[in-house]
Amino acid sequence: MTDPRPWPLDVPGLAYGGDYNPEQWSRQTQLEDVKLMKEAGVNLLSVGIFSWSMLEPREGVYTFAWLDEVLDRLHEAGIRVALATATASPPPWLTRSHPEILPRKPDGTVLHQGARQSCAVASPLFRRYALTMARRVAERYADHPALALWHIDNELGCHVPHDYSDAAAAAFRVWLARRYGTVDALNAAWGTAFWSQRYDSFDEVLPPLQAPTFVNPSQQLDFFRFSSDELLAHYRALRDTVREVTPHVPTTTNFMMSSATKWMDYHSWAPEMDLVANDHYLIGSDPHAHVELAYSADVSRGVAGGHPWMLMEHSTSAVNWQVRNRAKRPGEMLRNSLAHVARGADSVMFFQWRQSAAGAERYHSSMLPHAGRDTEVFRDTLELGRRLRALAPVRGSVVRAEVAIVLDYPAWWASGIEAHPSDALDYQEEMQRWYRALWERGVTVDVVSLHSDLSRYRTLVVPTLYSVSDADAQRIADAATGGASVLITFFSGIVDEHDRVRLGGYPGAFRELLGVRSEEFHPLQEHEILTLDDGTGADLWSEKIHCEGAETVRAWADGPLAGSPAVTRRRVGDGAAWYVATRPERSGVDAIVGALLAEADVSPEVPGLPPGVEAVRRHADDGSGFLFVINHTGASVEVPVRGHELLHDHEIQGRLTVAPWDTAVVREH
Amino acid sequence: MTDPRPWPLDVPGLAYGGDYNPEQWSRQTQLEDVKLMKEAGVNLLSVGIFSWSMLEPREGVYTFAWLDEVLDRLHEAGIRVALATATASPPPWLTRSHPEILPRKPDGTVLHQGARQSCAVASPLFRRYALTMARRVAERYADHPALALWHIDNELGCHVPHDYSDAAAAAFRVWLARRYGTVDALNAAWGTAFWSQRYDSFDEVLPPLQAPTFVNPSQQLDFFRFSSDELLAHYRALRDTVREVTPHVPTTTNFMMSSATKWMDYHSWAPEMDLVANDHYLIGSDPHAHVELAYSADVSRGVAGGHPWMLMEHSTSAVNWQVRNRAKRPGEMLRNSLAHVARGADSVMFFQWRQSAAGAERYHSSMLPHAGRDTEVFRDTLELGRRLRALAPVRGSVVRAEVAIVLDYPAWWASGIEAHPSDALDYQEEMQRWYRALWERGVTVDVVSLHSDLSRYRTLVVPTLYSVSDADAQRIADAATGGASVLITFFSGIVDEHDRVRLGGYPGAFRELLGVRSEEFHPLQEHEILTLDDGTGADLWSEKIHCEGAETVRAWADGPLAGSPAVTRRRVGDGAAWYVATRPERSGVDAIVGALLAEADVSPEVPGLPPGVEAVRRHADDGSGFLFVINHTGASVEVPVRGHELLHDHEIQGRLTVAPWDTAVVREH
Amino acid sequence: MTDPRPWPLDVPGLAYGGDYNPEQWSRQTQLEDVKLMKEAGVNLLSVGIFSWSMLEPREGVYTFAWLDEVLDRLHEAGIRVALATATASPPPWLTRSHPEILPRKPDGTVLHQGARQSCAVASPLFRRYALTMARRVAERYADHPALALWHIDNELGCHVPHDYSDAAAAAFRVWLARRYGTVDALNAAWGTAFWSQRYDSFDEVLPPLQAPTFVNPSQQLDFFRFSSDELLAHYRALRDTVREVTPHVPTTTNFMMSSATKWMDYHSWAPEMDLVANDHYLIGSDPHAHVELAYSADVSRGVAGGHPWMLMEHSTSAVNWQVRNRAKRPGEMLRNSLAHVARGADSVMFFQWRQSAAGAERYHSSMLPHAGRDTEVFRDTLELGRRLRALAPVRGSVVRAEVAIVLDYPAWWASGIEAHPSDALDYQEEMQRWYRALWERGVTVDVVSLHSDLSRYRTLVVPTLYSVSDADAQRIADAATGGASVLITFFSGIVDEHDRVRLGGYPGAFRELLGVRSEEFHPLQEHEILTLDDGTGADLWSEKIHCEGAETVRAWADGPLAGSPAVTRRRVGDGAAWYVATRPERSGVDAIVGALLAEADVSPEVPGLPPGVEAVRRHADDGSGFLFVINHTGASVEVPVRGHELLHDHEIQGRLTVAPWDTAVVREH
Repeated sequence: MTDPRPWPLDVPGLAYGGDYNPEQWSRQTQLEDVKLMKEAGVNLLSVGIFSWSMLEPREGVYTFAWLDEVLDRLHEAGIRVALATATASPPPWLTRSHPEILPRKPDGTVLHQGARQSCAVASPLFRRYALTMARRVAERYADHPALALWHIDNELGCHVPHDYSDAAAAAFRVWLARRYGTVDALNAAWGTAFWSQRYDSFDEVLPPLQAPTFVNPSQQLDFFRFSSDELLAHYRALRDTVREVTPHVPTTTNFMMSSATKWMDYHSWAPEMDLVANDHYLIGSDPHAHVELAYSADVSRGVAGGHPWMLMEHSTSAVNWQVRNRAKRPGEMLRNSLAHVARGADSVMFFQWRQSAAGAERYHSSMLPHAGRDTEVFRDTLELGRRLRALAPVRGSVVRAEVAIVLDYPAWWASGIEAHPSDALDYQEEMQRWYRALWERGVTVDVVSLHSDLSRYRTLVVPTLYSVSDADAQRIADAATGGASVLITFFSGIVDEHDRVRLGGYPGAFRELLGVRSEEFHPLQEHEILTLDDGTGADLWSEKIHCEGAETVRAWADGPLAGSPAVTRRRVGDGAAWYVATRPERSGVDAIVGALLAEADVSPEVPGLPPGVEAVRRHADDGSGFLFVINHTGASVEVPVRGHELLHDHEIQGRLTVAPWDTAVVREH
Repeated sequence: MTDPRPWPLDVPGLAYGGDYNPEQWSRQTQLEDVKLMKEAGVNLLSVGIFSWSMLEPREGVYTFAWLDEVLDRLHEAGIRVALATATASPPPWLTRSHPEILPRKPDGTVLHQGARQSCAVASPLFRRYALTMARRVAERYADHPALALWHIDNELGCHVPHDYSDAAAAAFRVWLARRYGTVDALNAAWGTAFWSQRYDSFDEVLPPLQAPTFVNPSQQLDFFRFSSDELLAHYRALRDTVREVTPHVPTTTNFMMSSATKWMDYHSWAPEMDLVANDHYLIGSDPHAHVELAYSADVSRGVAGGHPWMLMEHSTSAVNWQVRNRAKRPGEMLRNSLAHVARGADSVMFFQWRQSAAGAERYHSSMLPHAGRDTEVFRDTLELGRRLRALAPVRGSVVRAEVAIVLDYPAWWASGIEAHPSDALDYQEEMQRWYRALWERGVTVDVVSLHSDLSRYRTLVVPTLYSVSDADAQRIADAATGGASVLITFFSGIVDEHDRVRLGGYPGAFRELLGVRSEEFHPLQEHEILTLDDGTGADLWSEKIHCEGAETVRAWADGPLAGSPAVTRRRVGDGAAWYVATRPERSGVDAIVGALLAEADVSPEVPGLPPGVEAVRRHADDGSGFLFVINHTGASVEVPVRGHELLHDHEIQGRLTVAPWDTAVVREH
Repeated sequence: MTDPRPWPLDVPGLAYGGDYNPEQWSRQTQLEDVKLMKEAGVNLLSVGIFSWSMLEPREGVYTFAWLDEVLDRLHEAGIRVALATATASPPPWLTRSHPEILPRKPDGTVLHQGARQSCAVASPLFRRYALTMARRVAERYADHPALALWHIDNELGCHVPHDYSDAAAAAFRVWLARRYGTVDALNAAWGTAFWSQRYDSFDEVLPPLQAPTFVNPSQQLDFFRFSSDELLAHYRALRDTVREVTPHVPTTTNFMMSSATKWMDYHSWAPEMDLVANDHYLIGSDPHAHVELAYSADVSRGVAGGHPWMLMEHSTSAVNWQVRNRAKRPGEMLRNSLAHVARGADSVMFFQWRQSAAGAERYHSSMLPHAGRDTEVFRDTLELGRRLRALAPVRGSVVRAEVAIVLDYPAWWASGIEAHPSDALDYQEEMQRWYRALWERGVTVDVVSLHSDLSRYRTLVVPTLYSVSDADAQRIADAATGGASVLITFFSGIVDEHDRVRLGGYPGAFRELLGVRSEEFHPLQEHEILTLDDGTGADLWSEKIHCEGAETVRAWADGPLAGSPAVTRRRVGDGAAWYVATRPERSGVDAIVGALLAEADVSPEVPGLPPGVEAVRRHADDGSGFLFVINHTGASVEVPVRGHELLHDHEIQGRLTVAPWDTAVVREH
């Protein structure tokens, strides 16, 4: 564990609740809310996220009375509050009087008020207004007994991860000057000798605005870095403001860790949080959405340094922002919730408590739906509360994995910049391909950053780590030398952290470790599938490789590279370094993963489970384990385990039966 | 009939003609025009629509002489004129000297001069120029004997239904202040407590400009209402101007009623017209384009309150604005023309008389094509003139229907706003599905607004009436209580007129009438098809329904809702209320329509006709009927009828034979 | 040959080399460059293209020393230089201090610095800066012995063929005033009587900016003409500047002639060049990319008036700007290079010498790849050098063809403007369809402009010459009268040079020549395929034709036009005029081409070759021929020929064997 901070949230057991927006409802409805929350066992709510325009209805005029009443009422009901800074969306009076704080797209389009997040976080003027609001909230509620946690802003970067306004441009130049010191250093890093782009001073530099063709890729990559840093800077400024008023209250903001959220480098954000919180939503059209959920939960745990983390938002059923918003199947919400807990969440929270009647999110499901109490959704809200109370002992326990998969946000960004050998390459598609093969084998996986302790793992999977610094490449090599089986996939190690190609043969940074030299990429065309010498297919990518120390594991059976290596392996110190220079079909990936795990002697969490049954263990400080078994199938399953099943409160004498679509949690003896 | 106005157009028989743009042609060609028009029997022309830059070549300088000559020549030939206000497109000098009158898109893009309609109708400055032009034309031709009708502007809203310019924003705020009185009322209606959108004054409100994500849906809906109202306000201002000069001359403008034109609420526009006129164009790629034509004609009649209406524009053959502009098949133009007449049109007019040699519409077919007289198109122009003269007795007769289908423009707008349970839902697709089933059964249908007299019908079909006021929902319920069989389809009655969800269970406004309670929507994924218990398939939509007074007509046979209701029926007073909570395939829709009509004892206009043969009756004041039979098939058809066939002028003794692809009209005895 | 200029390039034999960007590399790497260049036989390099920001790092400050050193070193190595004016992309300091020189899109979007070509060539201010830079370079290196050619700017119009900035608008108005003299003439040409577009003065005219709907097509066409002319004007201004300093040095710029580059009328540009140079890149996803290469080379030769031309850029392997950048197969680069030479190129050059480590083009292949010397790519660089030295005798020889296909840029532009009968029509798709049928038959083809000597050919193919002047139509008719078999395809001759329709029946300008009259277009729908009376299929287009002098070659077998003509032929003087009024499938095109060639007695360059084997002859002044045989197949091929094979330096006694995928060049006795 890289970060030994204790769990700072003072809520008993596992936290349960969601976003609560009482300003949308009458007093009578608010009274009913509290009654139903208590019935459901809710103990934590996020309050005030979008309240700016209600708390400061015009500049400098504050109306806190309604919120006083809400917090008092919740406190009285024993419910604690993650109180927001109320800054997540500026009020109309602010953007109307100061349109210069609106964000802009690369083509100059202004993003106006009317939705949310219509603000340039880099604008000093906007930041001044936001800090004032945050300070007012902090001062008002510094001593309120309901206050358990500061919810700083909200989903920072969700809709405007990149702002191209003049304010952002100015901040970018400051950031660059700090990063590079001299403009010559920037010119060298960005390769501005190309296309007559040499800058004579930092003042000449722009964000990657719309241009006649491909903008300098190093400039783009730095702008992506800056944008993530600038959002974090906004977090820090808000956090410091409230911390000054309430040094005793922990702070966080809700991340959006998933296979889809790309632009915030949460690995660099996490150290600024008192705890890590995540919002996660299923993609309804994905038949394997529960695998993506597991991945996202594992990312969250990795970002949290292995510690427990908060599930700050998910949905009871359908969301509102996909094209066809699938309602969850019977039991699906319960399985989703417990899958997060199984992978380290010590809270289960939702957007939102009561489904809105108006506004853009009124078709997003909630704990209490439009149709009211007499609904399956609300009955499941009650059942989930019951289950989480039964799982209180789980709090604080941790997950342990022998396998890690490396996630690197800057590599994700860099690999997606255009004018690459194949723009069809998708970083997350590669990540998910390897993660899913491990999930299907029942192997518990940590999804880790390059800066975590890689030496702890028997197996390390490194999908498409396009950009990597020398130091980080060395850390991966050290893991192999130290005994791990390291698997690296194509288009890794190609460039340094400035997106400058490593010369002399691909895959630059890993050429020596892998014992291969590739002289040229041969991306495949759409629908082009070639065959490997074990008969499996592969698409998207091939390259002209020479083994220089490695052995060939798979060679091409056809295509222009027939006979030359496609998958290689090199013994390194006590470990091994594998290279997969193409994208094998699912069975091919599975076979490689099988060989890799066998070599490293890694077993599933529970051997012998049928496909679709997920098993993960959390380990308590006292050495006991909590085995979560989640049955994603329509058949009941038998699991060999001894202990006390917590959800149904009965002893298991060696054989646990989990009903179709159900979940069990056994505290093992 | 909701509107007892007499037919104000003083043209004998049925009007026949089209747009006439003599300014594009030499004097010699204009002389030939009149000769050929007389040969074809043309008796009405729309003149001057795009003449502003020719009539006022620079600010304040007027050149009417050429138009004087044209009108005199037409009058001399006995051709009457629908004279335009010449305001349909501002002249270049105007937009060049006043670019502030140009319209804008939500992202701020200015729509420049170079095409047509490059003007913000909400701009007071533009309106002043336009009214001046209209007044000049009116004053010039007030007493011209050719003047039969004022053609106010042209196709208002065709290309710029929504303008986001500053002028539009200012007018929107005025409109909102008038609608809501106080900004608190607006805040309540729009639910601005959500996402920190509370407005402190009307001055803060913007049109739904481009924003970081989904703009407030109630704001969008009101902007759509405003935009329709503002176009109508422009009409009214122009109309009042010419009416002041020529109080005796009727006024109208050409609507574009079809399954595609969405943004003008013609139901609210019609009362401002002295007669209702429509422009209709086939979609060449649609193999059932003649059904869509029938629908559009029925919409026109509904908008005209059941009265005869003008077909102001359609095409002799191909248009120019589709991707692949299909030429009409032999006889198709004649069938199209008479189908409009069959459904209430008392005129058949075209865009345009002579095909242009230049400009963006030069590949739009005309009465007289590029290739000249010796063409099938011109021969059909002559033949149509002959047929319309034979149909003169039809003038003034009306269509009668026992079935109505409800069309509501605001519900169309509201149902299409994003972030809904399924953005794949398309209002017109639902509308066309039910309309077509009725068309195929040969049943005459009125397409009516919610404000027409719904009590007149035996059967009322209400597709996806997403938004509805309490009062309008009550009118539908009253129709059922009064004895009608009312069929309502999914996602109806969900929100009120402000797009605020009706709480307590779906489908809010119709829950009691239908005797069902739905607790959750279950939209289906793309290509997902579930099965009903009669074996038919259904896609797009399902929902979790409980019968509370209704009986189950169809239940789900598979899927997560297997066994629960999909189609229900409840006896209500003397009638019945059906609910279709999914989108059945064609055969499923047909079976439901069959049961509905049988229950209501509704018959086809002519029972027993083969598929593809269309029969509609117009009824004269004297009780006689005109039976139109349009044969859309390649086989001749026998129709049992007695009377005088008008097109071929012969007596029918009980059995009319209609040749393949031909049309017959029998004045029944 | 229309242009008898001698080859002005003072480089011995065939020129060999590429773009050289030493500013991206260390001194040590530059020294290695020269060593490897000499090894490869490089004798010409393009230098300084993107050096502006390195040569003038801030306004008025010049740093030529590094370039002095480069040129001296190259001269010392015997390598000559095509020296650029360094103006291809403005330096950041210039666009930052003068943002008004940035180009704009039709919707007003500014195209910023960050890529390349972010400048409005019509801006007088920008041009002043560019001319100053060019003059400085010219003065500095006027007498440098390495200087062989001026490379004016670079790929003019590549990314910004059309600029809609205010500077461009002003220049457009000047251009129009020069073209039309009076605004009345413009109004007549553009048909501004339509849609109220009459201009009262040139000051009112805009570029075709974004408008509510289709902008006036004649306005668009003139703007396309202006844009091409304005880029050429920029070339001329730069050329005149350097020519003033170095009257003895030839000048050119690199065109981008291919099936994809549409917006520069290179036929009108060529007379301003001292020699014609081309950049050509394969489309990796096209399995027939070598046919497109042949076409592009033939276009280059046509633009060069039949003279030898320079291949200024192509690629050794993959490019970087396609979605999936295919690497070349073994031998493919050699075949590509010699195919260009076979069709008239007297140089083979690449982008670029050494593959960049940074910048947007770092994944574009080069003569010396990232992986260095020990690569197939560099070995082929050496082999190509060897082969080009062996081909030195080819220099100056020319290709002779009996068949020509007409390419007309303005017709390409005009045919692609929207609101046509079928927007699915694609000019180059038609061009390639007919070109490919000729290529597959082994027939050598000239691709010529309308202004070349058409009387030289036995067969003339004119695909979709939508717009044509009277004079040019007459030249085509004269070719037929003079004995040629002329084939014209649908949608030809429809409009004059102003895009005004020729009235009286299609295909206007060619109606008399072809002896047909078409009264109406019948474009086909997507996926609609009709059948001709020989059983072959045809899609996209049909039209209602009457033979008026022509005979029917193919009639429609089905569809609404069944029985009427689809392909016709008319005897004209000593020749014939064919009309193909649809788009036949490949076999149908081939059959028509077969009949056409048989009629004109045209034979392949080498009869009897198997499919995929390309044979072209270059003819020397002394009467001897060089037969190039390029084997695009995996089987070896025998070719009946006598002479000396140059690449492998051996005598051929009547039967040349060309190995699979290889090339041979025989100097025939």
